[in-house]
Amino acid sequence: MPRSIYFAVLFAALAVIAIEKSPRVAASSSPKPLGSPEFTADGKLVRPGGYRKWVFLSSGYGMSYSQSASADQEHLMFTNVFVPPADYDYFLEHGTWPEKTMFVLELYGSQSKGSINQHGHFQTEFMGLDVEVKDASRFADKWAYFGFDATEKSAAAASPGKNDCWKCHDQNAAVEHSFVQFYPALLSIAKAKKTIKDGMKLP
Amino acid sequence: MPRSIYFAVLFAALAVIAIEKSPRVAASSSPKPLGSPEFTADGKLVRPGGYRKWVFLSSGYGMSYSQSASADQEHLMFTNVFVPPADYDYFLEHGTWPEKTMFVLELYGSQSKGSINQHGHFQTEFMGLDVEVKDASRFADKWAYFGFDATEKSAAAASPGKNDCWKCHDQNAAVEHSFVQFYPALLSIAKAKKTIKDGMKLP
Repeated sequence: MPRSIYFAVLFAALAVIAIEKSPRVAASSSPKPLGSPEFTADGKLVRPGGYRKWVFLSSGYGMSYSQSASADQEHLMFTNVFVPPADYDYFLEHGTWPEKTMFVLELYGSQSKGSINQHGHFQTEFMGLDVEVKDASRFADKWAYFGFDATEKSAAAASPGKNDCWKCHDQNAAVEHSFVQFYPALLSIAKAKKTIKDGMKLP
Repeated sequence: MPRSIYFAVLFAALAVIAIEKSPRVAASSSPKPLGSPEFTADGKLVRPGGYRKWVFLSSGYGMSYSQSASADQEHLMFTNVFVPPADYDYFLEHGTWPEKTMFVLELYGSQSKGSINQHGHFQTEFMGLDVEVKDASRFADKWAYFGFDATEKSAAAASPGKNDCWKCHDQNAAVEHSFVQFYPALLSIAKAKKTIKDGMKLP
């Protein structure tokens, strides 16, 4: 009897050592990585949650690609762009975006004078989200575009196919369909990896 | 002998189950959490690295607390503010900042016309970092301020004690020494947790 206990203790100790030294295996119900796009049964994009803890790419103030200026120059919008951490890491390594990358462009109102601020502009009320998804398995044209107001829970893709969003990103975005020319922290990576599309006019 | 093997297998199995069910304990050489401030032997703050994967709070464009406007209105700077994820989570729960919180304010130059952009402004070249650290164990006045140009590896605190940075944050920042009034995603939290300082003029 004592001998069997010795064996038991020895095996248990060996088992503990083996488990502690082995790499953690993925849980059997492998969870989707943070920031994977999810769709409703009827193909709408579920509003991305938690993107505020994704990686910030850059922000713009009152950016417009149109020749005509906004009538109200004092209340232009800020745009903050986020991507999931794993997609950001992939870009740092490859200079391109992996399948299922989701870009969230957050829209905020702005204000100039307020609290102790006297000049320039800071962000105020949340206005909505524009989302771009890269998914060749779901979209014939690989890239799809979605708009969410401040509260919508899901959104259908902007007129499917090569709509105005798609065409503008295809023609003018520096890397694939992403405006890396406006994200200085990524532009240097794209230059180093030589992933900028031919003929792009950079800032 | 067979009996001792049965015991051994039984004990080993029980050990495996116990370990799999127990919460993971911290590694013995518990690494510092992401974004902890580090100091050189002579008390300078080591340039924070990796803050681009911290949590973005908000950005401003050309913000100034001074009555006089900048002479060059076409080349104002963007400011992007980041905090470590654990400190952000703490704020969501408490509406205040934990000891050792580090705020990184990143400075970027700006441009209006460039690539296809016609109006408004986007971020261009990296200009430097301003960093604020909350650490009552290290600083008699709890909060300290550091400036880094585009490449400096370490920086001494701005004239120690209650300097102009300290006084302005103390008098005007909505929560402790942080300008939560300019971070809309946190302002609602601070209002709910009632952690805004008395007498603050919010935007």
